Amino acid sequence: VGLWKLGNFFSQLFCHAKESFLLQKALEILLEERVQIIRKALTEEKQVSTKTSAADLVTETDHFVENLIISVLKEKFPSHRFIAEESTAAGSKCVLTDSPTWIIDPVDGTCNFVHRFPTVAVSIGFAVNKELEFGVIYHCTEERLYTGRRGQGAFCNDKRLQVSKETDISKALILTEIGPKRDPATLKLFLGNIERLLKAQAHGVRVIGSSTLALCHLASGAADAYYQFGLHCWDLAAATVIIREAGGTVIDTSGGPLDLMSCRVIAAGTREMAMFIAQEIQTIHYRRDDEN
Amino acid sequence: VGLWKLGNFFSQLFCHAKESFLLQKALEILLEERVQIIRKALTEEKQVSTKTSAADLVTETDHFVENLIISVLKEKFPSHRFIAEESTAAGSKCVLTDSPTWIIDPVDGTCNFVHRFPTVAVSIGFAVNKELEFGVIYHCTEERLYTGRRGQGAFCNDKRLQVSKETDISKALILTEIGPKRDPATLKLFLGNIERLLKAQAHGVRVIGSSTLALCHLASGAADAYYQFGLHCWDLAAATVIIREAGGTVIDTSGGPLDLMSCRVIAAGTREMAMFIAQEIQTIHYRRDDEN
Repeated sequence: VGLWKLGNFFSQLFCHAKESFLLQKALEILLEERVQIIRKALTEEKQVSTKTSAADLVTETDHFVENLIISVLKEKFPSHRFIAEESTAAGSKCVLTDSPTWIIDPVDGTCNFVHRFPTVAVSIGFAVNKELEFGVIYHCTEERLYTGRRGQGAFCNDKRLQVSKETDISKALILTEIGPKRDPATLKLFLGNIERLLKAQAHGVRVIGSSTLALCHLASGAADAYYQFGLHCWDLAAATVIIREAGGTVIDTSGGPLDLMSCRVIAAGTREMAMFIAQEIQTIHYRRDDEN
Repeated sequence: VGLWKLGNFFSQLFCHAKESFLLQKALEILLEERVQIIRKALTEEKQVSTKTSAADLVTETDHFVENLIISVLKEKFPSHRFIAEESTAAGSKCVLTDSPTWIIDPVDGTCNFVHRFPTVAVSIGFAVNKELEFGVIYHCTEERLYTGRRGQGAFCNDKRLQVSKETDISKALILTEIGPKRDPATLKLFLGNIERLLKAQAHGVRVIGSSTLALCHLASGAADAYYQFGLHCWDLAAATVIIREAGGTVIDTSGGPLDLMSCRVIAAGTREMAMFIAQEIQTIHYRRDDEN
């Protein structure tokens, strides 16, 4: 059902009659292979490497799944551009242009994945003229396919998503993630921000180890806000469309408009909640995704 | 399948031929009703009350499910004793004697439950002569039934559980929970403990909002350690059997033997990992469960 839904979703998107069926098939095979690979790999020991820090992990599966997705899409759309986690780590430029661009995280929650902690997703977003058009996020162990298309709503499988309407921090469940930098100053700021929100009487803070799935929880109304420093455009692209289509707000941590390349975000069910968090938290500096 | 497994599990446990079939049926109905109630309630707005602090929540469902479980078990086992979360909050004594005792958390992850954050479980443990004999934990939204019986292994549905063998903190994924006390001194200690473990280069720390399900992740090898101050015997009873039967260690935060009533715990895949954490973290004081 999930595979069919994804194919259907894409075929609606590109409504060229002849093309859409082939596209649907390609994406079905793609998604099926990809999810099978990740599920199988979840049961196995992994060869793990580190990237920017000891906590910034990557596995062979990340590379393999990313290459698989890009090669299929490239064949169908030779003129399109790609921004993807492991290609960027390997030196590809990470610049969003006006061209149609696929923004891909092959395995979000790599640290979870390495530990077989079953909170892992694949995320694919698509932008044209720097505007996010649609997003697809697949929860690899729970058969949950989150989709959103600009102007057309957001769904988890067949269920329409609707964010929380909470505006009061003292009734809020907040999600965040640690981020890759672990130097003492960064840790102080990270923990200080949690302290500020708990002192403001937030019901709780959750850290689940996957930005995209945390953002999907937000889109489904299961949490009231999410904020993070040190995530990337491939964590955000698909989820941003899904959250906005579920009625939510996605902004910069300064309170201004979202900058997809700025490696920071606040998302919330209501604008009031997002602005409260913007005023409460302190900035943790990360290099931009598009900074050479 | 889950319902059948639970019935089967219990019927193996009490191997009086005539009794076991009735017991199995009663428990199947019980579990089915209970999980249906919780699943239905997950989609609804809730009447929420607070207990010891603004973050210590309780709903009508907690009471309802707890009464349902106890009434069925009491009818079958009139001489048995019961320790259960909401009865204790309502003033029942929370003392573990040598009598056969059921230790019950009707809805673990109440804050998640209130927010419809889909990480919620029912936990039932059973002790005789103060020794934990078996435990059953049901993940309410994911059809995962965790079971463990002393000397007989631990399972998730049909799959045998095995803890992680990791001894090195710099390769570890750690789980913890915030606990109900939110005064500034407690928050400092809580966040300070996370800081210590991240400075020791733990891969990550996760906070999922359900102690029992975090402990189930530990039992399944998806994380390397769990520690918490401010949890209760009903969060620990079932999970302790499951973890021990999966090969893991469950000890007091001082490094000594577990005291089920002490409201604190370290659980880990290896004794080395548990002892490392015992040395690293600072104590947060909570009143014992059996303190008047």
